[in-house]
Amino acid sequence: MAESKKLPARDEDFANWYNEVVQRSELADYSPVRGSMVIRPWGYGIWENMQSALDKMFKETGHENAYFPLLIPLSFIEREKEHVEGFAPELAVITQAGGKELEEPYVVRPTSETIIYSMYAKWVQSYRDLPILINQWANVMRWEMRTRLFLRTTEFLWQEGHTAHATAEEAEDETQLILDVYRRFMEDWIGMPPLTGLKSESEKFAGAVRSYSCEALMQDNKALQAGTSHFLGQNFAKQFDLSFQSEEGQEEYAWNTSWGVSTRLVGGLVMSHGDDNGIVVPPRLAPVQVVVVPILTDEDTEPVRAKTKEIVAKLSEAGLRVKDDSRENLSPGAKFYEWEGKGVPFRIEIGPRDLAQGQLALARRVTPVGEKRKAFLPEGQVIAELPAYLEKFQVELLDTARARRDENTVRGVTSVDELEEALEHGAGFVFTGWSGDPAVEEEVKERTKATIRVLVSEEFRSEESPDRCLSGQGASVHEVAWARAY
Amino acid sequence: MAESKKLPARDEDFANWYNEVVQRSELADYSPVRGSMVIRPWGYGIWENMQSALDKMFKETGHENAYFPLLIPLSFIEREKEHVEGFAPELAVITQAGGKELEEPYVVRPTSETIIYSMYAKWVQSYRDLPILINQWANVMRWEMRTRLFLRTTEFLWQEGHTAHATAEEAEDETQLILDVYRRFMEDWIGMPPLTGLKSESEKFAGAVRSYSCEALMQDNKALQAGTSHFLGQNFAKQFDLSFQSEEGQEEYAWNTSWGVSTRLVGGLVMSHGDDNGIVVPPRLAPVQVVVVPILTDEDTEPVRAKTKEIVAKLSEAGLRVKDDSRENLSPGAKFYEWEGKGVPFRIEIGPRDLAQGQLALARRVTPVGEKRKAFLPEGQVIAELPAYLEKFQVELLDTARARRDENTVRGVTSVDELEEALEHGAGFVFTGWSGDPAVEEEVKERTKATIRVLVSEEFRSEESPDRCLSGQGASVHEVAWARAY
Repeated sequence: MAESKKLPARDEDFANWYNEVVQRSELADYSPVRGSMVIRPWGYGIWENMQSALDKMFKETGHENAYFPLLIPLSFIEREKEHVEGFAPELAVITQAGGKELEEPYVVRPTSETIIYSMYAKWVQSYRDLPILINQWANVMRWEMRTRLFLRTTEFLWQEGHTAHATAEEAEDETQLILDVYRRFMEDWIGMPPLTGLKSESEKFAGAVRSYSCEALMQDNKALQAGTSHFLGQNFAKQFDLSFQSEEGQEEYAWNTSWGVSTRLVGGLVMSHGDDNGIVVPPRLAPVQVVVVPILTDEDTEPVRAKTKEIVAKLSEAGLRVKDDSRENLSPGAKFYEWEGKGVPFRIEIGPRDLAQGQLALARRVTPVGEKRKAFLPEGQVIAELPAYLEKFQVELLDTARARRDENTVRGVTSVDELEEALEHGAGFVFTGWSGDPAVEEEVKERTKATIRVLVSEEFRSEESPDRCLSGQGASVHEVAWARAY
Repeated sequence: MAESKKLPARDEDFANWYNEVVQRSELADYSPVRGSMVIRPWGYGIWENMQSALDKMFKETGHENAYFPLLIPLSFIEREKEHVEGFAPELAVITQAGGKELEEPYVVRPTSETIIYSMYAKWVQSYRDLPILINQWANVMRWEMRTRLFLRTTEFLWQEGHTAHATAEEAEDETQLILDVYRRFMEDWIGMPPLTGLKSESEKFAGAVRSYSCEALMQDNKALQAGTSHFLGQNFAKQFDLSFQSEEGQEEYAWNTSWGVSTRLVGGLVMSHGDDNGIVVPPRLAPVQVVVVPILTDEDTEPVRAKTKEIVAKLSEAGLRVKDDSRENLSPGAKFYEWEGKGVPFRIEIGPRDLAQGQLALARRVTPVGEKRKAFLPEGQVIAELPAYLEKFQVELLDTARARRDENTVRGVTSVDELEEALEHGAGFVFTGWSGDPAVEEEVKERTKATIRVLVSEEFRSEESPDRCLSGQGASVHEVAWARAY
């Protein structure tokens, strides 16, 4: 249902552009349930491809999937003090079931640490039962007040990994292993290169000892927290009696990690690559990588239809995801518009003249500066080279996004004034020194609306470490990246 | 965590055998949430393989996946009269969220017709927008009083297809297409051949015009409703104003179908093939098709370990799902016991003597009567032939289950007395004539505890159609299959 009205301009009203583009490309729609969305087939197809790639990476690193209950007894959530403080305001509560008032209410899981570790406690007796490396694909619910399609919805889909280990060191390794999996996934599949690092105390997960995060920079230079990996220490193990007999015969508490990414990543994809014509889907995640559109004129259309079918068959055979758009009653222009809006990487057009000349028109959804949008190429070349063109398209999306991130990152900022100025000039990430004092973090946040996205991990740190805290008070203990964020 | 206690005997206490075997094989476990279960990695691995096979079949028949909200406004459920009567007693209700009482409560979806058709109404304007062929993989909740692992749980996982069509005929074709997909899936993947047919009025889905069902016969000769496909007519379309402009310019209501199978299928798999040693998983669905166990003696174990790795690598390369069980501190016997309990189709044992003789011991989880459980075969033969052995294993499971179903089906029964007698003698399906009178159905049910599973579809009907209703009152209008059921 393409509408021919122009999209709002990204640089004038990015938020409105986002809302419009998500709906027009049929990624998602609003639902009758407050803050919940419907993920339409095009959006769900992208999510399925994300799931399949991530799932493979999890399995290659030794994880298995399982499924735990949607409902959690309210008393479970209340056991870990910081956890309940973090989640209590957002809980949805079931008070009646099967026609009766429940004696103890259940909450719809906002995350599953409590119920999962209560089960691990039942399964683990000895160090031989460890590690447990389980992931779950599930829906969760957080009753947020202000919602945005994909970015913040009362219900969302995600994966949540929950692991139990015999030692703190093993759990820490797991936390970082997953952070790396997330980062590679975001780079190689979404073309969305994140900054990584530790969260500050005030921004960490409720119940964690340490939280690592992947923070990606959107086109409006706001940061998106795109994936987190938490070292939970023994906080939950102690509350749920998740203990084991060690090799030396001691009774010890296990060490836990949890980690998750969600359908929010689809929003990240949109805000990383979308343009004035709609969204752009990286080839590896695109439900349709190439659409083939016959140009049917008044002449005998059979040869063009037949050639369309042939091209679609050949490309499918080559392993590409191809769509034959031979719909009647819709002009080629309307089809072009629709598939561009949906972000399909390549379009092939076949008309009677092309047929006569043994050529095809190949149009790219986006092109590097200076390259042509559309080229007429010999049929054989298109068939043979399209897999390589798709790979090139994928790599260019990442390169472009990385260049944008780096161009919009300001380093070496030494005061709050400078930070504020940089943000007012449209900076994305701003790197400064920080003493670690939460009061500074709070003050700067109030003044600039920016938060510490991460204590930047080693590879992202500036060549020259900052000496002083941006507050002017005390030495810098961490180099941190500030940004306004989703 | 294999326990060496013997399983309850299947023929003495099938229900208890089932409960034990599901837990011991680590398919699932009880949870702290009433009637909800935890699906453990082994059970979830089987479900994932089921999902992947079914999903492919759905996509090959033109369906796409999407995702709709977990919550449904209570008023939506109430709109279709029969629907709400069917589901009201089992609803779980959310009355508080985000720290406040909700003005209108939400229910956790027991099924999604109402919310999905309310969305289709928004998306469909013209006949050009039809058909809509959408499937959803989701969790649903029905607050049942008596629950059983996999068979009946308050929360369960399933897929629910929901389609909208321009004509009744198209919708009817869709209903039957899916019934056939389900049947083929159950036969070719689970080795669980169902009887198919229409449900009687009293057993149909609440809100449907007609329900088709796949009914499989378990080893205790009780029937399991394993999958249903519903023709909904215009019942929901009228309530949710799902209308379209026809090619002739008329405003018409769409025709809907819905269809689903659930994690109940895992219970069906267990009850179809399990034996006194545990469950038996059909090769196509087995998370592990072959386990390789090194027999480590006091001698130098390195050559045996190396050979184990080599065999595992070769079989993986051949596309099989293989597990290397080189765990320390566990005897080969304990490993055999564990993997047999979990139903892995083949086990390879490698000891020093086998190594010297270039042979492997190959053990089958179950064997046709008269064949050996374990054979010593040349290594090359095992590697080359194992894919074919797995295929043979798969086919034999289906053949065995089909033979069992047919042996336990009694045809040509002409009275309620005879029906009762057949059931008392342990019959599974009993075929009789039926006038279509619901009073007869109700009376027979009260007397025999058997229900009409289906009005049998053509291919399952007896050569000679029954003349008379089993009540003795009136002519037979349908040949029906009775059974006690889950």
